[in-house]
Amino acid sequence: MPTNDQDQWRELGQQLRVDSIRSSSAAGSGHPTSSMSAADLMAVLISKYLHYDFGNPDDPRNDHLIFSKGHASPLLYAVYKAAGAISDEEMLTFRQLGSRIEGHPTPVLPWVDVATGSLGQGLPISVGVAYAGKYLDRLPYHVWCLCGDSEMAEGSMWEAFEAAGFHGLDNLTAIIDVNRLGQTGETMHGWDLDAYASRARAFGWEAFEIDGHDVEQIDAAFARVGNGGGRPTVIVAKTEKGHGVAAVANKNGAHGKPVTDEAEAIRELGGERSIAVQVAKPAGDGKPHVFETQGELSLPKYEIGTKEATRKAYGDTLVALGNALGDVIAIDGEVGNSTYSEEFKEAHPERFVQAYIAEQQMLSYAVGFQVRGWRPFAATFAAFLSRAYDFVRMAAVSRANIVLAGSHAGVSIGEDGPSQMALEDLASLRAVHGSTVLYPSDPNQTAELMSQVVDRDGIVFIRTTREKTPVIYQPGERFAVGGSRIVRQSNEDAVTLVAAGITLHEALKAADLLAEDGVRARVIDLYSVKPVDQATLVAASRETGAIVTVEDHFPEGGIGDAVLEALAAEPGRAIVRKLAVTIMPGSATPAEQLEAAGIDAEHIAVAARELAGARAPAQA
Amino acid sequence: MPTNDQDQWRELGQQLRVDSIRSSSAAGSGHPTSSMSAADLMAVLISKYLHYDFGNPDDPRNDHLIFSKGHASPLLYAVYKAAGAISDEEMLTFRQLGSRIEGHPTPVLPWVDVATGSLGQGLPISVGVAYAGKYLDRLPYHVWCLCGDSEMAEGSMWEAFEAAGFHGLDNLTAIIDVNRLGQTGETMHGWDLDAYASRARAFGWEAFEIDGHDVEQIDAAFARVGNGGGRPTVIVAKTEKGHGVAAVANKNGAHGKPVTDEAEAIRELGGERSIAVQVAKPAGDGKPHVFETQGELSLPKYEIGTKEATRKAYGDTLVALGNALGDVIAIDGEVGNSTYSEEFKEAHPERFVQAYIAEQQMLSYAVGFQVRGWRPFAATFAAFLSRAYDFVRMAAVSRANIVLAGSHAGVSIGEDGPSQMALEDLASLRAVHGSTVLYPSDPNQTAELMSQVVDRDGIVFIRTTREKTPVIYQPGERFAVGGSRIVRQSNEDAVTLVAAGITLHEALKAADLLAEDGVRARVIDLYSVKPVDQATLVAASRETGAIVTVEDHFPEGGIGDAVLEALAAEPGRAIVRKLAVTIMPGSATPAEQLEAAGIDAEHIAVAARELAGARAPAQA
Repeated sequence: MPTNDQDQWRELGQQLRVDSIRSSSAAGSGHPTSSMSAADLMAVLISKYLHYDFGNPDDPRNDHLIFSKGHASPLLYAVYKAAGAISDEEMLTFRQLGSRIEGHPTPVLPWVDVATGSLGQGLPISVGVAYAGKYLDRLPYHVWCLCGDSEMAEGSMWEAFEAAGFHGLDNLTAIIDVNRLGQTGETMHGWDLDAYASRARAFGWEAFEIDGHDVEQIDAAFARVGNGGGRPTVIVAKTEKGHGVAAVANKNGAHGKPVTDEAEAIRELGGERSIAVQVAKPAGDGKPHVFETQGELSLPKYEIGTKEATRKAYGDTLVALGNALGDVIAIDGEVGNSTYSEEFKEAHPERFVQAYIAEQQMLSYAVGFQVRGWRPFAATFAAFLSRAYDFVRMAAVSRANIVLAGSHAGVSIGEDGPSQMALEDLASLRAVHGSTVLYPSDPNQTAELMSQVVDRDGIVFIRTTREKTPVIYQPGERFAVGGSRIVRQSNEDAVTLVAAGITLHEALKAADLLAEDGVRARVIDLYSVKPVDQATLVAASRETGAIVTVEDHFPEGGIGDAVLEALAAEPGRAIVRKLAVTIMPGSATPAEQLEAAGIDAEHIAVAARELAGARAPAQA
Repeated sequence: MPTNDQDQWRELGQQLRVDSIRSSSAAGSGHPTSSMSAADLMAVLISKYLHYDFGNPDDPRNDHLIFSKGHASPLLYAVYKAAGAISDEEMLTFRQLGSRIEGHPTPVLPWVDVATGSLGQGLPISVGVAYAGKYLDRLPYHVWCLCGDSEMAEGSMWEAFEAAGFHGLDNLTAIIDVNRLGQTGETMHGWDLDAYASRARAFGWEAFEIDGHDVEQIDAAFARVGNGGGRPTVIVAKTEKGHGVAAVANKNGAHGKPVTDEAEAIRELGGERSIAVQVAKPAGDGKPHVFETQGELSLPKYEIGTKEATRKAYGDTLVALGNALGDVIAIDGEVGNSTYSEEFKEAHPERFVQAYIAEQQMLSYAVGFQVRGWRPFAATFAAFLSRAYDFVRMAAVSRANIVLAGSHAGVSIGEDGPSQMALEDLASLRAVHGSTVLYPSDPNQTAELMSQVVDRDGIVFIRTTREKTPVIYQPGERFAVGGSRIVRQSNEDAVTLVAAGITLHEALKAADLLAEDGVRARVIDLYSVKPVDQATLVAASRETGAIVTVEDHFPEGGIGDAVLEALAAEPGRAIVRKLAVTIMPGSATPAEQLEAAGIDAEHIAVAARELAGARAPAQA
């Protein structure tokens, strides 16, 4: 039962502080002082307001408690201990090899929704979860997000404030622990609570300013949560970093380290306690809303010989997935008529989320939705996914399952110029742990691959092309993630061309040019850049002895490097020539751009001829 | 002379609209309607308020005019034409191959400070330029930044509002062109000017709400700029997208495309005009402030046999560079006691800029400072540079010269866990056009490399290590960017170990282990990851036949891939085994992390033994 005993709240606050000290002292590192400031806030929250069944973290009715200030992990673990979720013994394995009690929270613990520790991410993701609660699940759970004052400097926090205010997320409460001190000194606003509250109010939030160590004030503020007439709530709490221990309280220089005298600190706080909190379980028998579907999956079909852009196939297929699967959600970065997410908006308006031009919030919606089991597809220009790269990186730490689609890849977008061209995206997204990187070359292939990744774990990136390209595969042909397709092949291949996306079509034209000179070229469609089809590449290396890779991307970290990696362990492997964009492009037509970058059919043919010729004498 | 003729302002506004239509119609693409909304604002600005010598864009006294809404490039080029900077003929080469009149503005034009087109970047960079004006140059130039309303959703805009308000940048004016319509539909706030103004005021700005097509109101607002008592100014202007042409005015669906009937549109606007504006030149004889220096460069020295972290060497060397060079500026992401930027703060407080936890603004300070010729060094954890990846990408398009330092690279940071570990940074930053990527292995080497990159063009990334590592090089030893160092070598080397940073020291220990088994290993310190020392790697390939690369980074796009690329064209090249982090790390000590990730000395030795053994029979 929830307790209403103020003395016990105060005692629990002391316990949470003591336990934060104990775990960080046991570890020899960590952030006890950043935990101590927020202990009273959490004590009241878990004693009276949080509704959560720690025995059943998958209960869809559960509230969500997200520490945006992830470095206050000692406090979070002390909360879990008080709630009976983990033992004192496990809590004290903090930061040890193999322990779930990691330095910053990650979902290896079942009560942690998402990894935090890169500041400014927990609140945007909380917005995502709260949006899911209000508009997708349609369940009354509440999202509680503990924020630091230092992280309020991150723009992503204000994307979150804007989004939550706009959508009227009254099921979201942000608690800003204004302990005044950052890592190296005072924050911009110190204890000026009104600086935070006035900003939040301007963004459409209800804001309460309180003493974050006064349990009565805390209780009063929490009691008013959700009464703001459709507005999200922020509780701006004045606190002391290291509160309760004179050696560190409100002292600069005490960030991110254990207290120097653990015993004295615990004595000052009144010693160890073992209060067990009976956290209220969620009430009611609500079940997540289920969106209606329209039968079996029916993928769009494109006729061989026609032309279509893979970005269009993305939009078409997304609609088809949405028809068949009620949990598919589309998120757009206000470019839906470019990415073709707008087709999904038309077909499934209740499952379409407009993130506006706020890519960090776009990623956060995706991560937040998948916390609740939805299958998000988020799309913008591939270049602008770079705006949310830290969120993608952290999504991997969160073990999130999301699909990202990036349109307008490479110089082949044409006249708009380099600001709109993704030329680093394969490199940056290949490097994300456990990611899948697809770069389809054909609309039917796009559809087929999308039908597979909807069930795939981890971060999936689909790179699409602005220009219409020839349809070369039949509808219904199978393309496996991790596979490739040999589009042209003979027993006399003197060189292999490896390409994907728009450059595959240039490679096919190059193969025609080479054939005119009597040079047979194998052409491999490397639509799965990660994982990569090592066997096919090794066979090509052995059988043709020379490989030209060609990609509409800068030279580092893309298709060429994926090929080189696949062949790294191969003795006597083929010579590889990487064709990629080595210039800083300007404006020009798509065809001119491909030529200027040296990745069009002519350039491919020249490189391939050189390699085939150079190799011939040695083989003779 | 500046004009005060309202009729002429109105005529000029029409001219700017007509020219925006003409250039985009000539190109067959572009954003005339987004240009037309802001034409009157720019007409008044350049006629009366802008101080700029278009004949001498390098004049330090010049104002700065930055289009944060870079897609309104037709308007910017129309302004340049009206100011006599470019001819009508050149204006009409918009978006053509080889033209300086690119789809979005870039500094190939001498009046463009920075490339824009990725929304939400122009204002943060304007804050950087304005900060330079007030605190570095100490000149009275004004920074005028034209913003779109759609881009106000980007968190980076609010980082900029926060920073400018905090620093009292009354030499900065943001002009928000509230034309209501984004790419696909209405913005969150439509024509609710107060939504923007109230947010801006909460962030400490002076805000004026006006009709952006009423030249009197525009004039009155500009006249009040800088009178806000140390506050930056924002002019929130209600405008119509496509204003003046009925077919597109305030119509959704007219974004990013030429008008359908050019002749009719120009007729509606009163026809072509050729008003030449005499833009006021900057007044006064002010010269940029020069900071005092303390003689010749004297790099810090570290004694062989001691231990020191390369991040500490970064801080020490930054101070030394600051002593000798008055234009070196340090920017910190509120982790200066981790990156050791704090040493520079102590030594050169006037040249130290605290960006707080706002990495996008941190990058924007750097880009803004280098606009004015300062040499910025910006540092945070390498993992958190990912937060500003789009800004780094665009900095390359801006041809910016900046140094980025990322500390706490890799799993070897230990207990803090994956949120704090940079494991994708080499991949993402290698892929940036024209970038230099350094990963020093020793403090003296760090100092030497830093003394070189201070003069280097482009984006320079220095990756530093949290842990103290042995000093292995003498003070004063030369290390060239693009070079490498063979640390161990013999005529009987059976394998080469390639490493950098913390793994170099593991490789050296591995070489000792291998030597105990009679296996000679060459060890290469690949401190320059890009550009890479191809000659040394090719020689190692030929002479040892087997290469193990080892890096504290995920497998894609880092040291291993740089080595593979260097050997791609080499016939019969060595077998390469890449050791890198393939797991998602948790918490553990640095040594445990290296072991768990398979990149410690033992794992290197095992891999090297296998390769050397596997190769031996074939060579025998």
